[in-house]
Amino acid sequence: MSSWTLEEVGTHNSASSCWVIIQNRVYDVTEFLNEHPGGASIILRYAGRDATPAYEPIHPTDALDKNLHPSKHLGPLSTSAALLATQAQQQTQKTKDELRVEAARKQRPPLSRLISLADMETVARNVLSHKAVSYYSSSADDSISYNENARAFSRFFFHARVMRPVSQCDPSTTILGYKSSIPVFICGAALAKLGHPQGEANLTRGAYQTSIIQMVSSNASLSYSEIMATAAPSQPLFFQLYKNKNDAIAEQRIREVERLGYKAIWLTVDAIVPGNRERDIRSPWDLEEMETGKKEVHVDVADGELDGGDSGFGTAGALIAHDDRDMTWEKTIPWLRSITKLPIVIKGIESVEDAILAADAGVDGILISNHGGRQLDYAFPPLEILHRLRQQRPDVFNKLEVYIDGGIRRGTDVVKALCLGATAVGLGRPFLYAQSAYGVPGVVKIVQILEREIVTAMRLLGAASVQDLKPEMVERIDWQPIVRPKL
Amino acid sequence: MSSWTLEEVGTHNSASSCWVIIQNRVYDVTEFLNEHPGGASIILRYAGRDATPAYEPIHPTDALDKNLHPSKHLGPLSTSAALLATQAQQQTQKTKDELRVEAARKQRPPLSRLISLADMETVARNVLSHKAVSYYSSSADDSISYNENARAFSRFFFHARVMRPVSQCDPSTTILGYKSSIPVFICGAALAKLGHPQGEANLTRGAYQTSIIQMVSSNASLSYSEIMATAAPSQPLFFQLYKNKNDAIAEQRIREVERLGYKAIWLTVDAIVPGNRERDIRSPWDLEEMETGKKEVHVDVADGELDGGDSGFGTAGALIAHDDRDMTWEKTIPWLRSITKLPIVIKGIESVEDAILAADAGVDGILISNHGGRQLDYAFPPLEILHRLRQQRPDVFNKLEVYIDGGIRRGTDVVKALCLGATAVGLGRPFLYAQSAYGVPGVVKIVQILEREIVTAMRLLGAASVQDLKPEMVERIDWQPIVRPKL
Amino acid sequence: MSSWTLEEVGTHNSASSCWVIIQNRVYDVTEFLNEHPGGASIILRYAGRDATPAYEPIHPTDALDKNLHPSKHLGPLSTSAALLATQAQQQTQKTKDELRVEAARKQRPPLSRLISLADMETVARNVLSHKAVSYYSSSADDSISYNENARAFSRFFFHARVMRPVSQCDPSTTILGYKSSIPVFICGAALAKLGHPQGEANLTRGAYQTSIIQMVSSNASLSYSEIMATAAPSQPLFFQLYKNKNDAIAEQRIREVERLGYKAIWLTVDAIVPGNRERDIRSPWDLEEMETGKKEVHVDVADGELDGGDSGFGTAGALIAHDDRDMTWEKTIPWLRSITKLPIVIKGIESVEDAILAADAGVDGILISNHGGRQLDYAFPPLEILHRLRQQRPDVFNKLEVYIDGGIRRGTDVVKALCLGATAVGLGRPFLYAQSAYGVPGVVKIVQILEREIVTAMRLLGAASVQDLKPEMVERIDWQPIVRPKL
Amino acid sequence: MSSWTLEEVGTHNSASSCWVIIQNRVYDVTEFLNEHPGGASIILRYAGRDATPAYEPIHPTDALDKNLHPSKHLGPLSTSAALLATQAQQQTQKTKDELRVEAARKQRPPLSRLISLADMETVARNVLSHKAVSYYSSSADDSISYNENARAFSRFFFHARVMRPVSQCDPSTTILGYKSSIPVFICGAALAKLGHPQGEANLTRGAYQTSIIQMVSSNASLSYSEIMATAAPSQPLFFQLYKNKNDAIAEQRIREVERLGYKAIWLTVDAIVPGNRERDIRSPWDLEEMETGKKEVHVDVADGELDGGDSGFGTAGALIAHDDRDMTWEKTIPWLRSITKLPIVIKGIESVEDAILAADAGVDGILISNHGGRQLDYAFPPLEILHRLRQQRPDVFNKLEVYIDGGIRRGTDVVKALCLGATAVGLGRPFLYAQSAYGVPGVVKIVQILEREIVTAMRLLGAASVQDLKPEMVERIDWQPIVRPKL
Repeated sequence: MSSWTLEEVGTHNSASSCWVIIQNRVYDVTEFLNEHPGGASIILRYAGRDATPAYEPIHPTDALDKNLHPSKHLGPLSTSAALLATQAQQQTQKTKDELRVEAARKQRPPLSRLISLADMETVARNVLSHKAVSYYSSSADDSISYNENARAFSRFFFHARVMRPVSQCDPSTTILGYKSSIPVFICGAALAKLGHPQGEANLTRGAYQTSIIQMVSSNASLSYSEIMATAAPSQPLFFQLYKNKNDAIAEQRIREVERLGYKAIWLTVDAIVPGNRERDIRSPWDLEEMETGKKEVHVDVADGELDGGDSGFGTAGALIAHDDRDMTWEKTIPWLRSITKLPIVIKGIESVEDAILAADAGVDGILISNHGGRQLDYAFPPLEILHRLRQQRPDVFNKLEVYIDGGIRRGTDVVKALCLGATAVGLGRPFLYAQSAYGVPGVVKIVQILEREIVTAMRLLGAASVQDLKPEMVERIDWQPIVRPKL
Repeated sequence: MSSWTLEEVGTHNSASSCWVIIQNRVYDVTEFLNEHPGGASIILRYAGRDATPAYEPIHPTDALDKNLHPSKHLGPLSTSAALLATQAQQQTQKTKDELRVEAARKQRPPLSRLISLADMETVARNVLSHKAVSYYSSSADDSISYNENARAFSRFFFHARVMRPVSQCDPSTTILGYKSSIPVFICGAALAKLGHPQGEANLTRGAYQTSIIQMVSSNASLSYSEIMATAAPSQPLFFQLYKNKNDAIAEQRIREVERLGYKAIWLTVDAIVPGNRERDIRSPWDLEEMETGKKEVHVDVADGELDGGDSGFGTAGALIAHDDRDMTWEKTIPWLRSITKLPIVIKGIESVEDAILAADAGVDGILISNHGGRQLDYAFPPLEILHRLRQQRPDVFNKLEVYIDGGIRRGTDVVKALCLGATAVGLGRPFLYAQSAYGVPGVVKIVQILEREIVTAMRLLGAASVQDLKPEMVERIDWQPIVRPKL
Repeated sequence: MSSWTLEEVGTHNSASSCWVIIQNRVYDVTEFLNEHPGGASIILRYAGRDATPAYEPIHPTDALDKNLHPSKHLGPLSTSAALLATQAQQQTQKTKDELRVEAARKQRPPLSRLISLADMETVARNVLSHKAVSYYSSSADDSISYNENARAFSRFFFHARVMRPVSQCDPSTTILGYKSSIPVFICGAALAKLGHPQGEANLTRGAYQTSIIQMVSSNASLSYSEIMATAAPSQPLFFQLYKNKNDAIAEQRIREVERLGYKAIWLTVDAIVPGNRERDIRSPWDLEEMETGKKEVHVDVADGELDGGDSGFGTAGALIAHDDRDMTWEKTIPWLRSITKLPIVIKGIESVEDAILAADAGVDGILISNHGGRQLDYAFPPLEILHRLRQQRPDVFNKLEVYIDGGIRRGTDVVKALCLGATAVGLGRPFLYAQSAYGVPGVVKIVQILEREIVTAMRLLGAASVQDLKPEMVERIDWQPIVRPKL
Repeated sequence: MSSWTLEEVGTHNSASSCWVIIQNRVYDVTEFLNEHPGGASIILRYAGRDATPAYEPIHPTDALDKNLHPSKHLGPLSTSAALLATQAQQQTQKTKDELRVEAARKQRPPLSRLISLADMETVARNVLSHKAVSYYSSSADDSISYNENARAFSRFFFHARVMRPVSQCDPSTTILGYKSSIPVFICGAALAKLGHPQGEANLTRGAYQTSIIQMVSSNASLSYSEIMATAAPSQPLFFQLYKNKNDAIAEQRIREVERLGYKAIWLTVDAIVPGNRERDIRSPWDLEEMETGKKEVHVDVADGELDGGDSGFGTAGALIAHDDRDMTWEKTIPWLRSITKLPIVIKGIESVEDAILAADAGVDGILISNHGGRQLDYAFPPLEILHRLRQQRPDVFNKLEVYIDGGIRRGTDVVKALCLGATAVGLGRPFLYAQSAYGVPGVVKIVQILEREIVTAMRLLGAASVQDLKPEMVERIDWQPIVRPKL
């Protein structure tokens, strides 16, 4: 296999013959254009050119091997071409957003000055690229689910008990049999490389250092094997499965992660179609406006000539384009059980009814979740579902482990969920923000803050262990507190 | 019939002899002054002069034929007079508001950048004249009904179901037997020409292109025949009837629309007197202030000399001055049935009690509505009435079709109403805004956005068709979310 | 009796001998100092000087005759002294607040531009002196009662009925047997002269022109006879009695108003001690700051030397210093009945329990009121008390007439109260604001606005007379609308 | 014992030999470093130097005698050294915050212009050092408990009774048998010297002048004996006990205060570990930023080199480092009863369940409190607990006295608590603010304001004594008023 010059690649710059350069290697993606989950147009922007800067932050390293036939891997650039490509990249003028991020990273406060998860989010929102913050923070429609997920916690107050021995206080628990230093796990969240070059590996290392468990997304920006390679020998990792509509492809993915040593399958059921994440959709237009200093205005033509092009579904749409939209309890769970002996958790239960069906289906756990408010707006807040499940069907908690995620930002939030019967809670965005802002130490800091807050809350509640947290310690109040994050 | 000079017309410039020029034709309106629904004074401002610019945007073309005896149609201006009149119009200096609108229309973003109905409203509010935006957006008293219509939707959350096959998802339905691509229709809304020269015809064409149904207002600014002439051969149109207090005149109107091919009569019962729409009333004063740059101040006279003139009822008052304020179930429905075989829908039901009476009266449908919050302030939100009706009298839904309007701005809003038993929902202002801002393509865009949002919500709820939407999928919550339209 | 020079009066300038000039007459108030309800210090500021400007706006003309022994009426100033006094008054430099008011009065909009009571309040707040606006608008403590009185109305929504004949709609009613054009009366409110030189006479004339009834306060700034002299021959006036703790003095007052022709006694029971009206208390300090341009600062002394002077109770405290704080149902009502045959209404009922006791005591009416939120903060909103009374004891409405006041600003407010059983409602501040801003025409305008709003609401509710307004037409909702007065 | 020079002391400037100067005396604290509740690092900042300015405002005068072995009291500075030390202190440049405070104290308004507790807090927040205001005002996490403590009062409205004799109105009561002029006591609050040089003595003197009772904190900045020495001969003082985990040390403290004449022991059970008071924690960083004019920024290093130092627990953490975290009803109450015959009150009950256990344990009173919102965020508001206790277990009120604290700022707040069964209420921060701003007269002023407000509320409620305040006079409403402290 010979090597290529930039000129040679440059002639394949159209839909009829489309080559791209990624990390100094040349690929023929002509036939792949229509299979690309993110659509053909995004690839065609780089036809005949170097696509590395756009490709790298959102694709794991094995994406090309998995998705593009070996015959289309055309081989390396010539040495001189590679040199030119690198120079071209270096000479590319930085965008205003890149310059903003560079300056902001130099202004990060020392970690010791961060004393809450809100502090961490503030730093991260400053140092993240506009594209990353838009993807991480965006939520469906009018952000009602996103906001109400968090606000639900403010409607549960404590009946604290005094005069109980709490000098020794242990916040640890087990999740699917695996030990966790606090009842918190890292929820599957995609595209960590958007925020930090090491991406999901920061989470893996931070989880190990603090003895908590990471759930790895199907849409991670590192390959499943890279992440596992980062883990310590005995460190447990869970796998968040987005099931392909092709059962054979889905099975292949499960076999791979089982072989790699992942300890459980968390089947995602609340994101079978993309949510309407307006902030993410608008992100490229914002950047354009930021760069040019003005909104793109419409040329004054007659109404009939107006363009009516579609606006797409943002980053989220591309990731799940091939996912299975026809899963059922009757078909999918038995199929999954037939493929793997790993514990199965259903991620994305949004009603008491489905929690009961999950228990009937014999799965090992359910994660009550509305996908962080990113899918269906006005989905019920997970804490409210947990509360109803506790009141209406306490027996379900004996049949499987129950987790919740969405809106958890304080130790008291964690403790409330545990009082109502949750085994543990998941956090997604806070860990993405932390690794983006400070890498591994950021992840460790988040766990330290949560542990301090959880232990403080448990002691002041009169609880020396997670077993001491009881439903009668929380009451759902009938008024709505005014929540102002900071004074 | 000879032609007239401007001088000849100009001598008839008082209440004792009042002629006006409209589209280069001369009319003697002396005797009509007291019959004019908008009052004599507005006509007298143009006595002896060209009234076209004020007349045209709010009157259908057949208004003069229908309301002014042929003997008062005095004939055309002379050619030279018509030329002078046209020149005079062109030389009239544009008002500040007209200049503002002109500039704003050149700044409209391309339609592909609009991803929500809120985006469309934002554009429209910029490009509409002050008079138009005041008339379209105004609501009664303190806008409580207007705001609470929308806020009611935010109190209904979903219990979404997962693990249901939804790759195939069909949002279509039928309304009074007519097919509609989504469970949404265009609600009767008056004076579309205030926003766009083609007026209601934009709605007709947009409805056809997207396979939804338009309801045409009695107070449309195009004539009923013009609108029907715009429609495609098989395109169904509904007619919103404001019943004249003179039964004979009312019958004549019904006969006309039946003959023209309208498919149903929607009898309006919630607007028998004008609501107190303060924004509309204040509109001319605002314009005066905008033009002169200062508020009109009072000359400092003794209290006793203060003027006490009435402030009128704005645009709305004029439109319904001759409507029937004494309709009853016993008298009006049988009379209407005796006139027409078309389906009858009662538009403006505001209580469970009247929904039951409507079912007893044997009509074909009811539109639960408080007229978009434009009539009685503190009228119950339609969604709340629908919810009560579902709970208290589910049998009513078997006797007639139930629709609601008011405050619907998202696909989730539509889906909530359908879960509670509505057959379809009406939208008024969003379509007026869309046709004002972009003409037909704007109308099409609104339907595209709604369809995308409805299908997304249905799939994430686990519903593959409108029949799958059930009351148990929504719950009325006991807290009030904070709704911020945009992030 | 000789006449006095300014020098002669000027020597009596201390507490041991204190003379004052009022309208060019000289009075010895030395012995009266300690009896003055407003305290001695306010009089001593004018010892030996002309007190007219401070005295006139808050005292009726007969105050000196009623309260100061004839022997202390020392006679007129000499002609030249009177001239000097007048000149002195004219040369007094106007305060910044007086100049502000003068300018504001010239900027009043014409009455035809006022379309709501909120508009009137806006104008009035601009043209009133700081002292007047502070007295009129102030309310107790943190203004919770004041604000919640109004907000209570926003929690009652209508179940409007359609298809009812309402072309004829009559909003009139009777109050204690006296005809009123709308179910609204002018509530007793003190010190109208603070806002307008004609004071309460504006209200009397406006009430006559619009056929509504005025209740005259014991603390009116015109004498009861002056007000009655202003009334038309057959015009009914009610009297709001603040009962003196000395029964003989109280009886004398009742005999006087009965003789003058007042038609009913409204005994005030919710203002036996002054409320904590902070805005009123702070008013003189605000004026001082406005005049000097800076807050009075404390000279930096040791803590122990700090002054600890009392802050007084503002204007309100002075007015009721001698009132009876020991009234009881057993003692006071029979005593009152023994004095007068006039109808008796208890003004200031704040609980269902006392409404029942009032019915048992056989009075003719009750005004459910917390004194416009000026007395006890966190007193229940009158509309809520009315609602409870309707639900718990509907029989009470058969025994006496029930009125409410507090927070009524819209026709819909009036109609809600009538649906729940009120015979009529009282408004205080809106009438004070109206007469302050525009004199009699302002008062008339308020009634016109209310009548238009009431009739519109009745028609849209399906009610042709006040008898058609029923409890089932309103529902107390379980959410709290966001009330923004204007768009 | 000889005297020391500054040079001699200066050589002991490290952890291996650490001497400090306090009020011109020299102490060897080398061995004490690890015992210091506030940690070693804060002492080491002053190693070999004069620590008086930092030491004095937060330590009682007997702290060294009680905590440092006599052999470590090394004796006085030499006369010349003491002179130099004093000069050094005087020459130290004032910080920006000190200069701000100095200026603000000169601008205090005269006390007569303060008419509410909110006014007092406004002045105090201006004149307090940043460190003091941070410590006094800080509360746990997101200040939900702090804010909701106060907001709970706004959900209880009055059913006021009229026609009851109240000219004589007595607000006095007894607390544990001791007379109090109003049903209010000064709650234990630490570190009064942070706000004023006389510290807790201001409270003692103010309490005496107004005949109310002061509860003295274990963490007072004056010694228990100094405070008692300030008291008048018959003046009762209560003692707030923070129990040391070493029973012997705890017993020693109880014996001391009993001997000094304190009248009751209030055992604190809601502050066994420090709350997360973020404002207090951030205070030194704020000061640093204030002084340098910029936020400390992070040097741009790789993520791995980021510091991960702990942020500490602020002032609060230090004070209770040695407290008992293993108290129980079974063990601690009998032990306490065995030590002392004084009445025992449990301070910090946060649930109905524990109120019942306290009654069973036979204590004399309970203070329902969540420590002013400084400990567990989302602890129930005390007024809500009181309300539930009244409804669920009215018998508890017969077994012991019940008090509440937290959020009380108005006379109406006090009256509501008494209606629901409280014997008296405690206020902490308002008294700290008052003594900080004005010393003793400030404390007296607070009581005067409260007395005026309480008596006004009682009279307007129809209550002539605290016995007349009944549960049926308040109702918990189902809406949430909007509370704006000032107009």
